[in-house]
Amino acid sequence: MSISQSVRKALEASSWVRRMFELGLEMKKQFGDDQVFDLSLGNPVLEPPKEFHQELRRLAEAPIPGMHRYMPNAGIKETRMAVASRLARETGLSFTENEIIMASGAGGALNVIFKTILNPGEEVLVPAPFFWEYIAYAGNHGGSVRAIPTGKDFQLDLGVIEEEVTSATRAIIINSPNNPTGVVYSPEMLKSLGALLSKLSEKLNTLIYLISDEPYARIIFDGLEYPYVYPFYSPTIVATSFSKDLSLAGERIGYIAVHPDFNGKLELIEGLTYSTRVLGFVNAPAMMQRAVQASIDLNVDVGWYQTQRDRLCRSLEDMGYQFVHPQGAFYLFPKAPIADDVAFAQELISHRVLVTPGVGFGGPGHFRISYSVEERVLEGALHGLSLAARAHGLPG
Amino acid sequence: MSISQSVRKALEASSWVRRMFELGLEMKKQFGDDQVFDLSLGNPVLEPPKEFHQELRRLAEAPIPGMHRYMPNAGIKETRMAVASRLARETGLSFTENEIIMASGAGGALNVIFKTILNPGEEVLVPAPFFWEYIAYAGNHGGSVRAIPTGKDFQLDLGVIEEEVTSATRAIIINSPNNPTGVVYSPEMLKSLGALLSKLSEKLNTLIYLISDEPYARIIFDGLEYPYVYPFYSPTIVATSFSKDLSLAGERIGYIAVHPDFNGKLELIEGLTYSTRVLGFVNAPAMMQRAVQASIDLNVDVGWYQTQRDRLCRSLEDMGYQFVHPQGAFYLFPKAPIADDVAFAQELISHRVLVTPGVGFGGPGHFRISYSVEERVLEGALHGLSLAARAHGLPG
Repeated sequence: MSISQSVRKALEASSWVRRMFELGLEMKKQFGDDQVFDLSLGNPVLEPPKEFHQELRRLAEAPIPGMHRYMPNAGIKETRMAVASRLARETGLSFTENEIIMASGAGGALNVIFKTILNPGEEVLVPAPFFWEYIAYAGNHGGSVRAIPTGKDFQLDLGVIEEEVTSATRAIIINSPNNPTGVVYSPEMLKSLGALLSKLSEKLNTLIYLISDEPYARIIFDGLEYPYVYPFYSPTIVATSFSKDLSLAGERIGYIAVHPDFNGKLELIEGLTYSTRVLGFVNAPAMMQRAVQASIDLNVDVGWYQTQRDRLCRSLEDMGYQFVHPQGAFYLFPKAPIADDVAFAQELISHRVLVTPGVGFGGPGHFRISYSVEERVLEGALHGLSLAARAHGLPG
Repeated sequence: MSISQSVRKALEASSWVRRMFELGLEMKKQFGDDQVFDLSLGNPVLEPPKEFHQELRRLAEAPIPGMHRYMPNAGIKETRMAVASRLARETGLSFTENEIIMASGAGGALNVIFKTILNPGEEVLVPAPFFWEYIAYAGNHGGSVRAIPTGKDFQLDLGVIEEEVTSATRAIIINSPNNPTGVVYSPEMLKSLGALLSKLSEKLNTLIYLISDEPYARIIFDGLEYPYVYPFYSPTIVATSFSKDLSLAGERIGYIAVHPDFNGKLELIEGLTYSTRVLGFVNAPAMMQRAVQASIDLNVDVGWYQTQRDRLCRSLEDMGYQFVHPQGAFYLFPKAPIADDVAFAQELISHRVLVTPGVGFGGPGHFRISYSVEERVLEGALHGLSLAARAHGLPG
């Protein structure tokens, strides 16, 4: 066997994803790329702000000697200072560069975090539906993920969390704005969560981390201010990236932030820095660190995403689909008109629309739409979504 | 405990490195950065070729729409084609883009490889002295590294390899030009190694991978042509980077190449692609992939490294140090004049020279010098090296 048993098992388990992907490819071959409407990818479609490219150009025209070399594993000090200063301003907490570790995107950050904190057999609770890669990320480092149900409108169910936390629970991971639902947790909800985790830590005499995976923090609508988790619980670790707010998903640039008031922070930060090194990340890509530093207060045009959301929500509502109105990210997670979401996604493929079945997020009976697509793709998809709705007795 | 037991153990085990590092820092504080001669870092000191920055500038001036987005996990097709075409030309083998997976440096590549091939309890043999991070890399993925002795002049000892390979041996990893010795394995040596591994695979009825970690392949002297491992053994996986040949260590850009004639390659490549994704690398940094594609046939000035080597070797020979003459990389691994290499490195610190004790490479009784430093640093260090030699009865 040319690969390990665990990797082979993982490949087999994800074979249905491949089959759907291949069905989509066949459709594209048959009808042309233009005539297949792909809403299955979480790939930011906007271009980075022009100031970002200006900074890249400046760096390429007058390279700073040594700027492509190895650096301390946590990253460039000035970049970390820029991140810390934004966080300090936005949270009122005393962040310094010491609490910031630059990372290779949020996916890299989460692997570094899990490697650093998980002992064999320890588990991470995650409210479902959730980003399925968490399972592999925790499994990479000897831990596991256990999904727990959410409550009404995919909000946290604190009663469930209280029941499900055990002494094997090393962390709970939340993701707001959420992939796949687009739901944002309110400050009140986060405050209650923090209080509950404090109570449970004390009761179980254990350290329960709150991991906040927040790459969509700045893709947020309706004039909302992003509700940070920091104010409500100090054993908090944030994993995030510039993938969505600066549209840099392929550049693998993000960071880990440790709560400045967490009393185990020195050892934790040392551990995170070590894991960054030995997992082979070594440091986040050097030039991108400098480039995001110059763009630290910039954002892609979030209004564009909001317009896409509004267009999509209005149409799907008219068609009779049921869904929770999303306030962030660029996803919608409607109920499928039939119980079998994989079958429904396959029906949509026959209408040349690609979506992701909810079972791929631990949310069966639903499907995920990414509206981070060009307007014409969204328009084209609406037609197929309407036909599929009608086929199951909805207005369509 | 705020971190896992395994990470805490690793931090404790490397505490002597920290102590030496801190001693060095104190020296720098006391005498000034200019007056401390640091030969302890494997950080390429040359700047990338100017064509590389021209390409960066071109990309920043006229960004290709979508160039910062996610891409297939194996990387940009055109970049992989450029790598494959160079390998095909230099090896005569039928490389295509399908055998190339872009990686976040060789450290990232090795983590991806180990994750993909190692079952729990399997081991990777490594001829000592060796790059110490291999231990952590294999340990990250449930495997382990077992060091085996080399023969005369740090060359491979095939008799030892034959004795040490067992049914638990999943791979042997070699690193030529070698860190820390600078030794290059000859085609004859690699041919014998390939034949031995074929014989042992058959005898043990198992698949033994040959992993070649070759980031220094193009930092090679004396008119040598790089002896590739590919011609001699088909279950070969190469991990490498552009960190040294283009001086891009901080940008985390490299690749994995799978032997085109390996009969398990399809499953292996699928596994490597999966591991790239779930370890959180997702893909190698996007813009750097494009930039190295344009510089695929370029190199930093290897002549400069050769001049540094010659200057260093001549001087150390005169001082009475014993060492194997290196033919590549930018390291020298002399015998310490006393048995205790950590003590000798500490003596050198008192002469304001920083080196790495051989024990940090599984080569006690030696020390590693990196001559990837400015000329004035090398000159300054020679004085301290001379004093330390004299203190132990060498000419100095």
